[in-house]
Amino acid sequence: MANADDDRRPKYQRIADSLREAIQSGEYGPGDRLPGENDLMAAHGVARMTARQALSVLRDEGVAEARKGAGVFVRAFRPLRRRGIQRLSQQQWGSGRSIWSADIENRALEVDQVTVSEEAAPDRISAVLDLADDETVCVRRRRFVLDGKAVLLATSYLPTSVVAGSAITQEDTGPGGTYARLAELGYKPVHFREEIRSRMPSKDEAAQLSMSPGTPVIHICRTAFADEGRPVEINEMTLDAASYILEYDFDA
Amino acid sequence: MANADDDRRPKYQRIADSLREAIQSGEYGPGDRLPGENDLMAAHGVARMTARQALSVLRDEGVAEARKGAGVFVRAFRPLRRRGIQRLSQQQWGSGRSIWSADIENRALEVDQVTVSEEAAPDRISAVLDLADDETVCVRRRRFVLDGKAVLLATSYLPTSVVAGSAITQEDTGPGGTYARLAELGYKPVHFREEIRSRMPSKDEAAQLSMSPGTPVIHICRTAFADEGRPVEINEMTLDAASYILEYDFDA
Repeated sequence: MANADDDRRPKYQRIADSLREAIQSGEYGPGDRLPGENDLMAAHGVARMTARQALSVLRDEGVAEARKGAGVFVRAFRPLRRRGIQRLSQQQWGSGRSIWSADIENRALEVDQVTVSEEAAPDRISAVLDLADDETVCVRRRRFVLDGKAVLLATSYLPTSVVAGSAITQEDTGPGGTYARLAELGYKPVHFREEIRSRMPSKDEAAQLSMSPGTPVIHICRTAFADEGRPVEINEMTLDAASYILEYDFDA
Repeated sequence: MANADDDRRPKYQRIADSLREAIQSGEYGPGDRLPGENDLMAAHGVARMTARQALSVLRDEGVAEARKGAGVFVRAFRPLRRRGIQRLSQQQWGSGRSIWSADIENRALEVDQVTVSEEAAPDRISAVLDLADDETVCVRRRRFVLDGKAVLLATSYLPTSVVAGSAITQEDTGPGGTYARLAELGYKPVHFREEIRSRMPSKDEAAQLSMSPGTPVIHICRTAFADEGRPVEINEMTLDAASYILEYDFDA
């Protein structure tokens, strides 16, 4: 792989590149321990700082992760495949299943930190839900933990005028969840819009999702619409990007 | 905002949190200059290193960006809205428009660094395109530059057996682009699958996209299918996450 171009790369970059190639070729698999600083110093005849920089390049890229006192490992990446469109079909929640059950493929899912409260609507929510002045929202916050790892934070906003007195204002929304209850209330979701962004997590998000350094979050803002384009829910989700592949399937 | 919990935060974190709140409240808008190290030292009675750390927290989160010699600024975020489903409708490329023209809203777009070559297919590509042993692919690489900023790297793979001799093997694929040509060849794309991931960029990607530190990339892998589920193209795209909002609209 050496050529005139390569030789201009700094030493730590050349070492990082060769480790990355070894990972991509499968020489080191997910969860495998990578050579440590001492190994790299001996193998490449470099100073400790150079070896450390090489490993930090791979950590910053999210290819590898450090475990305290144990070394640097190829990140074990077994992400969830979230099928954006199929999971929200009415067949799913209409039959009493949770939307989430479409994603998890028999893995152990726990929803924790559920809170439900009536709050003043933030401006961006009020604008999209087209609320009357001073109309409050029902706010449902929860965290999803999969195989013991927190993977998603979700906050839903629904107009109090729509959901007051229903199970949507309770921790347990019942079979089929919020969307099945909205249908019973006469606001069946018929259309969805998902907006996807990605950025680095805040310290708070990184802590709540137990994220490894060098990992971004994916932010999904979903709006659910009932008949005649009436917006009935906004769900703001923050996903650990190392835990997810989002998939959208659609016709031309 | 001070309480017993907050007081346990390190000083630089408290300063970063107060700056972040000022940004979120709109006191500092996109593109505004934030207080510099000297300002923060004077205002909070802290050492230069503490002021520097506070600013680096916001840079790492992607909230702010440093401009050499000028200071630290609230990131001016005017992202492209990429409407995943509408932009690929046959009405778009069937009428001779490029798919890209759906995204750019009259902004100045340039496609540069276009290369087209015949190559051995990487294993992952060969598997998805269901290629015969040793069947090669036509590889189209290009970069998209918007308002002078590189925003997207794209590499498409198509079976040589399908595209040989067509304009798809030329730099300029003609009106409606690759999909219009595939339709003429009897392989009209009728279905798409997009897979979305997010991670930190490699050094190479960061350089090609002139990315600010602390910004992730979004990776989209799209497969285009012709009739009977025949896969005819894979397009691997790497997007500067600060430049994009992805939108998917669909029915329940």
